[in-house]
Formats: sequence, C-alpha cells, structure tokens
Amino acid sequence: MRRVRVGIVGFGTVGRASAEIISKHADLIERRSGVKLEVTAVCRRSGVRPEHTPAGARVVSNWKELVQAEDVDVVVETAGGTDQPLQLVRAALEKGKPVVTANKNLLAEHGDELFSLAASRNLPIGFEASVAGGIPILRVIHESTAGDRLRAVHGILNGTANYILTQMESRAIEFDQALQEAQAAGYAEADPSLDIDGFDARDKLCILARMAFGGRLKVSDIPTYGIRQVRAIDIHSAHRLDSTIRLVGSAEQTEAGLEVSVRPWLVGCRSMLAKVEGVNNAVFLLGDKIGMQMFYGRGAGGDATGAAVVSDLIEIARDLAAGQLSAKKVSGFLDSHDVGICPKPRPVSWYLRLTVRDQRGIVARVAEVIAHRDINIDSLEQEPHLPKERLSFVITVEPVSEPIIQRAVGAINAFEFMLEPVLLLRVE
Amino acid sequence: MRRVRVGIVGFGTVGRASAEIISKHADLIERRSGVKLEVTAVCRRSGVRPEHTPAGARVVSNWKELVQAEDVDVVVETAGGTDQPLQLVRAALEKGKPVVTANKNLLAEHGDELFSLAASRNLPIGFEASVAGGIPILRVIHESTAGDRLRAVHGILNGTANYILTQMESRAIEFDQALQEAQAAGYAEADPSLDIDGFDARDKLCILARMAFGGRLKVSDIPTYGIRQVRAIDIHSAHRLDSTIRLVGSAEQTEAGLEVSVRPWLVGCRSMLAKVEGVNNAVFLLGDKIGMQMFYGRGAGGDATGAAVVSDLIEIARDLAAGQLSAKKVSGFLDSHDVGICPKPRPVSWYLRLTVRDQRGIVARVAEVIAHRDINIDSLEQEPHLPKERLSFVITVEPVSEPIIQRAVGAINAFEFMLEPVLLLRVE
Repeated sequence: MRRVRVGIVGFGTVGRASAEIISKHADLIERRSGVKLEVTAVCRRSGVRPEHTPAGARVVSNWKELVQAEDVDVVVETAGGTDQPLQLVRAALEKGKPVVTANKNLLAEHGDELFSLAASRNLPIGFEASVAGGIPILRVIHESTAGDRLRAVHGILNGTANYILTQMESRAIEFDQALQEAQAAGYAEADPSLDIDGFDARDKLCILARMAFGGRLKVSDIPTYGIRQVRAIDIHSAHRLDSTIRLVGSAEQTEAGLEVSVRPWLVGCRSMLAKVEGVNNAVFLLGDKIGMQMFYGRGAGGDATGAAVVSDLIEIARDLAAGQLSAKKVSGFLDSHDVGICPKPRPVSWYLRLTVRDQRGIVARVAEVIAHRDINIDSLEQEPHLPKERLSFVITVEPVSEPIIQRAVGAINAFEFMLEPVLLLRVE
Repeated sequence: MRRVRVGIVGFGTVGRASAEIISKHADLIERRSGVKLEVTAVCRRSGVRPEHTPAGARVVSNWKELVQAEDVDVVVETAGGTDQPLQLVRAALEKGKPVVTANKNLLAEHGDELFSLAASRNLPIGFEASVAGGIPILRVIHESTAGDRLRAVHGILNGTANYILTQMESRAIEFDQALQEAQAAGYAEADPSLDIDGFDARDKLCILARMAFGGRLKVSDIPTYGIRQVRAIDIHSAHRLDSTIRLVGSAEQTEAGLEVSVRPWLVGCRSMLAKVEGVNNAVFLLGDKIGMQMFYGRGAGGDATGAAVVSDLIEIARDLAAGQLSAKKVSGFLDSHDVGICPKPRPVSWYLRLTVRDQRGIVARVAEVIAHRDINIDSLEQEPHLPKERLSFVITVEPVSEPIIQRAVGAINAFEFMLEPVLLLRVE
C-alpha cells in the first residue's frame, strides 16, 4: 500500500468537496484501490478559512510553492480562469507531476499545448470533472467506445441554463425572474454570461467533439447562441406544439464535415432531452455499433464534480503505486489535423418567434421574405390576447439549411415593425 | 506498435459481431490504442460457415486447442451456458491468457472462483459485455464511482422483457401475442424463460450489486419474479394510474442490509424508467456524492454487446503492449464476506390485481384480509365491462414491508373465487 499526496490549488466549492471526499471516503478508496490518498497542501488566492483546511494539510499562499513542494505527488487544479491555471498546469507537468483539472475553459483553449506537454513527459492529465460534472462521459468516450466509430455527440451541458429553462417551464415565469432565482440559489453567477450565453456549454462541447471525432477544433469556430432571448411566451408556444425548450450542444460527423453548434432547441415533450430537468446534464452518444446511448446526472455542484476529480485521482494513484504512470493517449488532443467544420449544414426544421408592433400587412411581408428563399412554412400562429403594441408571432418552417434560414431572419430583423430580433430555435 | 491475437470461442451473434468490429474498425483501433487487434482463431460447437470466418483466422474444432494455441494471446468467450465456459475460462487463465467474456450466468454463478484464479495469475477478465450490452456500466462502477459510496443500483436489465412490456403498452396487445412477436423478431428465445421469468436480469443484478456494494451474493438469494403474469388489463390499469409497467432489478444498501429483488414495477409515466422503451436497458446509480446517474442504451444485440467485448479487448491489448498486464481488483468478487441481505425490507407501496369469478362479498372478504394485517388500501377499482365469470380488481395499498403484503397475498390466493394468483407489482 502506498500513500499518494495531493495538493489542491483553487480551494473553492469543487476543491473543498474533493478534499472532503478524500477524507470522508478514505477507507473505501484504500480498500478499492490499495492506495491511501492524502491532501497535504491547499492554496487559494483569497485564503483558506481554518475550518475548511483538511486535517493534516497545510495552507500554502503561493501556487508555485505548492507545485514544487516535496510532499505533493499530484496537483489538482480547481481554480477556474485560464491564465494562472495554464501556468500552473505547465509548471506541474514540467516538475514531473501528474495533474487533475476541472477546468473546461483551460482545456478548450489550451488543450493542445497541455496534452502535448503531458505526452512529452509521459504524464497523465485527469479531466473527467471538466465536462458534465459527475457524469463520467470522457472516460466512456475514451475507453468504452474505443472500438466504435462515433457519429454524433450532443446533450445538455450547462446545468444553470437548464435550471432556468425548466423553472420557466414548470412555473410559467419569465426569464428574468428565473435567472434572479437561480442567482439567489447559487446556481448562477452574478455575471451569468458564461452559463446563459452558451459559452460554458461551448467549451464542454469542444472537448467532447475533439475526443469523439479526433482533430483540432477552436471554440471560436463553434456557433454559439444562449437562452437570454427565450421568453415565457416561447415556453407557452412550445407547449402548444407538444414541446419544450432546451439549450443543446451538438456535434455531428457527416460526410461533408462536422456540424457543430450550441443553441436552444425546441424538443418534443416525449424526447429524452425534455426529461432532463433542473441542474442535471445529459450526454447522448451515437455510434455505428453501440447505437444511441445516454448518460445522465448532476452536471455541476461540488459533490458531483468533486467525485469526478477523485475518480481521476484514484486512477492516477493506482498507476503511481504500480509504477505504471503514463500519459493517456487522449484522442483528439494530439492530432494535428482539424476536425473540419461542415460548410453547409443539412436541412433541419426551425422555430421563429417575432415580436412586433402591430400594423397592417406584417404576415404578408414576413411570409414573402420566407417564400422568397424557398422555405416552406409548417405552422404560423399569432398569440391571442396580447397588446397591439407588442404582438408575438410564432412560425415553424420545414427543413432548411442554417445559412438560408439565417438570411431570412436577417431580412425579417430589418423590418421597421420588429421590436427585437427574431428568436430562432432548432427543432429537434 | 504490437499485434494482439484474439481467439473467439462461441462464434454466434456476439462472437461474430466482435470479429466484425475488430476487422471493420481496425484502423480506428490501431490509431487510438497503438495496438493492432487480429482474430486468429474461432471455434463453435456447431461449426463456422466459411462466409462467417474472419479473414486470416482459422476455424478450430475444439476449444481446448484454441486456448492452447501459440497464435492466441487473448481468449474471448461468447459461448453461453456455464459448464463448458467455466472449463474454458479456467484453462485460459491457467495457460496465462487474459479472458474477455459476455457470460453473465457464468460470472454470477462462478465469479468468485474465476476472479480469484485471475488474481492469483495476475490476469484480467474483461466482462463489460456481460451486463447491459453496450452500456459501459461495469467500467463506470469500477472506475468512475471509485471515490463514492454507492447506495443503490437499479434498472431495466433485460431488453426482451422490456420489448414485450412496451409492445403491450403501445399497441394494447396481450402478453402472449407480444411474446410470440418477440420470438418471431428474434428478440426472445424459443424457451423464453430466462428473459421473461427474470433470471437473466437476476444474473446481471447480482454482478452489479456485488461490484457496487462489495461482498458475496448468491443468485439464489435474490427474490425473482418475471412478467409472465402481466396482462393487457394491468397495462390498462397502470395507465389509469398515470403509470406503466417495467421489469426492474433493484439493489439498495440500507442500514439493515441489502434490499434486492427482480420484479415488475408500476412506474409513473413521467419517470425515467417509463421512458426506456423497446429492447433498451437503463441502469441507475445512486451515490452519496454523485447523486443519481442514469446510463441508457441498447442492452442486447450483437453490435452493442460486441462493442463492449472489443472495448475490453482494447484495454487488455493496451496493457499487454505496454507490458503492464495485471488483474483488475474487481470490487465485490474478491471479498470473502457476504453482502448481507436485509431481513425486513422497508415499506413500499404495492399494486395487486385479482382475477375472480364474481360472487357476492368478494370485496368485503379481500378488504378484511388486508385490514387484518394493518395494510391501508390506497385505491380499489373493479374493471367495468368484464364478464362476471372473469372479473378483475385492482388494489393499490399504502407502504408496507414485503413479508406483510406477501402474507396478505397468500391469504387472498387461498380464496375459492380466485381464478389465478394475485399479480403483485411494486409501486415506484
């Protein structure tokens, strides 16, 4: 039996939860893995309160000191942000220490450099916690689908956005109220942009897509739309269409390249996506042989994310103890070719909601713009009982490629009667 | 790069699908794992048709010859049954060769002996394919929840039974018709007992429970009820209760011991269990830190099960190539203590369906039997429009421990007006 000593940088919710699991489940971990994990050092920019300091651990004021410390075998990075974590992970690997990180943003932006450095030092980077919290989706892609050809990966990757949408759905409240409540409940940050504008989901999707399909993919190449524009009236219209709304990250490998985006979808009420409620996440994999698989669970929160951090630590500790530490060949992050984004995505159906100041001829002019681009309207409904100075129309259209619908949306947005831009949802 | 040569014994659906994946995805596997997998020998009792023989492989008439062959590094067992596979796996391990098996029955019955033998030789047994087909649930429990304390594992573990139930549900057909169609579609065997009487689900649950909670567990200690007694009228009654019926294997660790069973459940229509349709499987894990997770996908079929076999082969091949082959410490199968079955399960709600020849006083006598055991009736309905010589009553009762409801059921079954035994469903 061997001791493996852990240093944690960024001792917030996830860092503390990881330390607590290591301490609380010490006997379990030792019995299962034959290794004794111990937190020996913690570091947090804003300081660590004495009651949060793990028993037997010391508080280090500087992350550089922690990385260099003789009594730290593995470095856990749960700090967030990218600049300092980038330096930190580099320094740890250069010091010959394996790393575990929960930082999706770091890996989406700098994964190529870091995995390449790790490979050159033959050291692993554990990053299960970076995507979908406690759901072990990265390990599943890396190990369990190693023999299959994956065709698609999509899912609900941001718990905060999903919480807001399902609150709007179940309680018929407006977006602003749902967001404020999510902030009050600690699910959303004071600046909620990362969650509600889709950037957090985009970073996770980038990691998933690279692992599933192999090759380089820049986050800036992933079209990303959030849920800021979704209103109670959209949830209401969705219900009329026996559907609801979810923020979905989707990557699909086609003959013509990768179709990838983060955007709100209109999903049927009987769909598995619709069953994902609250802060939960779900990831769907489609493979030639495995067919469709779904992985569901808590996508965030200290406990679930901490459990993922600890699962990585246990794997590394087992290998350390057996003298078999090695870089994992992380599919997708060591490839020098691009995944290749599809220039012309396949046709899908769309939902458009227009908010207008009523005047004569609106429907005719909108229908003309749509018909002009050979788009077929599937349904059109003007919401009743709304004030004339602020009317909503909902239009669903038959399958058409995104560039075409976007051109139509652009033309509609230019009309003088439009009070805000069209809300565009992909129909599942 | 190294070649790893595979011999397959039992060249039926799963064996052939495994060989096909190895050949069809050879480049993918090589790129991801750095190892070239090759099927060099196959063996099937009833012979192998030339068009099924993998390119470059020879057909061996005797499994003993295959196990001993110089050109076989890893032995895959996809034969089914227990006697011959037991000898086969023993012989392979004794010859120093790692094994991959899809045989749940073998491991549920002889897992202790085989994992102990594997440990003594420091050889792995891959068995992902033995539970829930393509869903990588065993790897998830072994690796991803290694740092958590699991409290419960339950799920839909038999695709055939689920297919029959969901056909009865969606098309309002009788059990016999759904079974015959499942047999015609190749989902059910000529002798369907293993699937519809719950024994296949029981073997899988036994493996899951041992891995999740640790300790010995005999399959014969798992109370097992199938779906043979479920009738169209039960699906109809379930719908009235906004529910449906699923065959569920459930193991829950409580202070008083393990509560474990395979039985049909009445599940709410909004429940995730109800969303599992057709031949799909789903496994739910509940852990202190991860919360509730669900893993969903194809539970059977050559492709999905073959993909699981190949994922095990790739893991073993990677380790072989790296000179790091070792027995995995398979939690639960190397423990000498029993899991400890709970003698008095906690109270749950139940659904009872009685089929009777109508006569005066039936409801009074049944209600008296139930009241006598301090069980509270939650709802009671006599199905209308049925012939008097064959009436159905459906009763749901408030939470009560299983031994108590079973005694009531025993007393009701003894009544002279009962045409068949009570159908008892656990209410989710």
